[in-house]
Amino acid sequence: MEKASLLQLRIFDLNCWGIRYISKLQQERVELIGDVLNQEGFDLVLLQEVWSEKDYWELKKKLCTCYPSSYYFKSGVIGSGVCVFSKHQILDTFQHQYSVNGYPYMFQHGDWFGGKSVGLVVLKIKGIVFNIYVTHLHAEYSREKDYYLSHRVVQAWELAQFIQHTCKGADVVLLGGDLNMHPEDVVVRLLQGWVGLQDSFITAEKVEGCEDGCTLVPANCFTNKKELQCFPQGIRIDYILYKGLSQYEIRCNSHETTTGKAPNKDIPYSDHEAVMVTLSVAKKQSDEELNHPAVAPTVVDILNEARMEVRVGLHSAERQRYSCGRMAVLALLLLLIQGAMGLTSILGGNIQQPFPKFSFSLLSLLAVLVLLISAVLYLFHTIEVRMLQGTEEEMRLGLQTLQDKLSSG
Amino acid sequence: MEKASLLQLRIFDLNCWGIRYISKLQQERVELIGDVLNQEGFDLVLLQEVWSEKDYWELKKKLCTCYPSSYYFKSGVIGSGVCVFSKHQILDTFQHQYSVNGYPYMFQHGDWFGGKSVGLVVLKIKGIVFNIYVTHLHAEYSREKDYYLSHRVVQAWELAQFIQHTCKGADVVLLGGDLNMHPEDVVVRLLQGWVGLQDSFITAEKVEGCEDGCTLVPANCFTNKKELQCFPQGIRIDYILYKGLSQYEIRCNSHETTTGKAPNKDIPYSDHEAVMVTLSVAKKQSDEELNHPAVAPTVVDILNEARMEVRVGLHSAERQRYSCGRMAVLALLLLLIQGAMGLTSILGGNIQQPFPKFSFSLLSLLAVLVLLISAVLYLFHTIEVRMLQGTEEEMRLGLQTLQDKLSSG
Repeated sequence: MEKASLLQLRIFDLNCWGIRYISKLQQERVELIGDVLNQEGFDLVLLQEVWSEKDYWELKKKLCTCYPSSYYFKSGVIGSGVCVFSKHQILDTFQHQYSVNGYPYMFQHGDWFGGKSVGLVVLKIKGIVFNIYVTHLHAEYSREKDYYLSHRVVQAWELAQFIQHTCKGADVVLLGGDLNMHPEDVVVRLLQGWVGLQDSFITAEKVEGCEDGCTLVPANCFTNKKELQCFPQGIRIDYILYKGLSQYEIRCNSHETTTGKAPNKDIPYSDHEAVMVTLSVAKKQSDEELNHPAVAPTVVDILNEARMEVRVGLHSAERQRYSCGRMAVLALLLLLIQGAMGLTSILGGNIQQPFPKFSFSLLSLLAVLVLLISAVLYLFHTIEVRMLQGTEEEMRLGLQTLQDKLSSG
Repeated sequence: MEKASLLQLRIFDLNCWGIRYISKLQQERVELIGDVLNQEGFDLVLLQEVWSEKDYWELKKKLCTCYPSSYYFKSGVIGSGVCVFSKHQILDTFQHQYSVNGYPYMFQHGDWFGGKSVGLVVLKIKGIVFNIYVTHLHAEYSREKDYYLSHRVVQAWELAQFIQHTCKGADVVLLGGDLNMHPEDVVVRLLQGWVGLQDSFITAEKVEGCEDGCTLVPANCFTNKKELQCFPQGIRIDYILYKGLSQYEIRCNSHETTTGKAPNKDIPYSDHEAVMVTLSVAKKQSDEELNHPAVAPTVVDILNEARMEVRVGLHSAERQRYSCGRMAVLALLLLLIQGAMGLTSILGGNIQQPFPKFSFSLLSLLAVLVLLISAVLYLFHTIEVRMLQGTEEEMRLGLQTLQDKLSSG
């Protein structure tokens, strides 16, 4: 039986690639995005990589009539890059920063400086409470040698747990953003399996745009073609996932992506394609009420797989911590030896100084620098080890509770 | 009408002062705490400042029969210090690390290294879902010159928002821990006003132990007497707060503190007194169901006061960031001048070097060190500024929603 839809929601999601002075045609693209959002009048706009708050404020000014409510999630050194524009009033917000997020010394990747997090905004439309989550997980860079996989798995686990624990008061849950993972990857399966989110691309009644819903495609003039060598038709890493809670159920009417260019324009919005989704919310029939859906045994496998990735990351973090500690000890030893030598030459003034003073002090400079940097990195990797251990422990507990449920059910 | 209590819960909360090799009689006290917990058989034990995981594992081993379920929240360089022992099975956990938590260069205070956070454990006892929150906020150190007040207010706000957003699926909410604030302080009032938590000391039908429920008292041989000069009878900074949700209501049957010594022993458990509370959970009568209690206008004042503190902290963080930036620029300038001078003396070999080589290179060492340290601190204070701005913005939005509610209701 066709159920009467209570409301329809049109959502726009885009990774904007908004690095001022570095991203190509950045100003033009921000203006273009603003123009299109005003024309189209979505209910909800979820943006990532709006790295400059100036860009956010410009967009806010431009969109204030059509999208009177908006929020930028501040985080890290340069912001989280994540913001939301909404036609409906934002009632409440909350942010959870991920406990691991790459390395500050990987300047060329820069994710650490962005302070990746998940932002939650709460809306109430026609009495229905919407919990909207926006996020941007750590980038992949290399699929063969993915040094950040364990960090991304921890982020996905925290995202999943954050949604699980904060969504109980909501009627509709919606997650949008750049997960930096392919649909078959453990991160995406974890969000689907553990939280019970549905993928709008899979469930949509009508799909338009790039093949397989890809959001990084070779047709886009800004994409790095080398990254897509193994994936000639592109990859899908931007998602809109959802679930209905309590007595509501959600249908995905349509899922659309741009196809390498903004409609009727010569340039794309970004190096990612935009995802546009229409959802309709309907009331469940009372006999369909399933507040506690059965837990699928596959979730155990997914969680075990995720836990394995965290363990791999833990070993690597422990190795890095050990290297930093050893380096710090060596630098300290060198400094002590130098100190002793300096003291000897001062006290026993007659003894011939074996090294020229200049190289001697240059060596001290080096030792002090190495000591300082490796000590700071030792602390950093200690925190990383602890957070990975904590996640592994949380997952272990999650698995145990899940298995208890499965064996009792 | 007296309502039939569905269950009674006995809770023990203690800041253990467990710094290995520094805290006095640390090993003896951990053993003592373990013995007493086994004898007393509480339902729930909430501990803070268990800094060494070894102590946690020793306690876990000792308590495994009486408290089969336990969890340690890992965080920061040395852990969060926060752990839970429970007679009832822990079903799920989640941790939220506070976005600001003192300064890494304040070694003598050390709070930053602890990675302060709020831990959530979920229990289900006789079908009733309990969300148990444990936390330890940043210490005060000086009440007159409290440099950390804004950080503590941000932590309290995040704690309040974390509880608000995660408690919707629970029947009973319980928060225990060391808030490092007096009962009349804005942090405590924020938790009471914004989240609607009740203070077990205020509501208890029977109160025993220290006067005014104090948990830092002069009678305790480990307390710093100087800290209590202005408060001759002590201060109360450890709390158990609670609220009932959905159809449950909670009564606090008793609230007890130790009085400077562990019962029948010569030494106290810690430099803090332990708090022991008995709560009983009863079903509400249907006519009492008040899922959305009226918002008191005083909450607006509390939130405004908290926002003001965050603003004060923001100004101070901006000043510190500016100082660090200026220092980094000066060090860079000095290095550039030195580089130019060095280059001149190498290229024009005949020119007399005006400085001895040794002091010249020592000055470079200093400049490099200052540049490095002030650049890192600049980044650190930038993150601090961003987090304080974010909290202020969240509070502004909270206030707006609150005022809308008040004017419409």
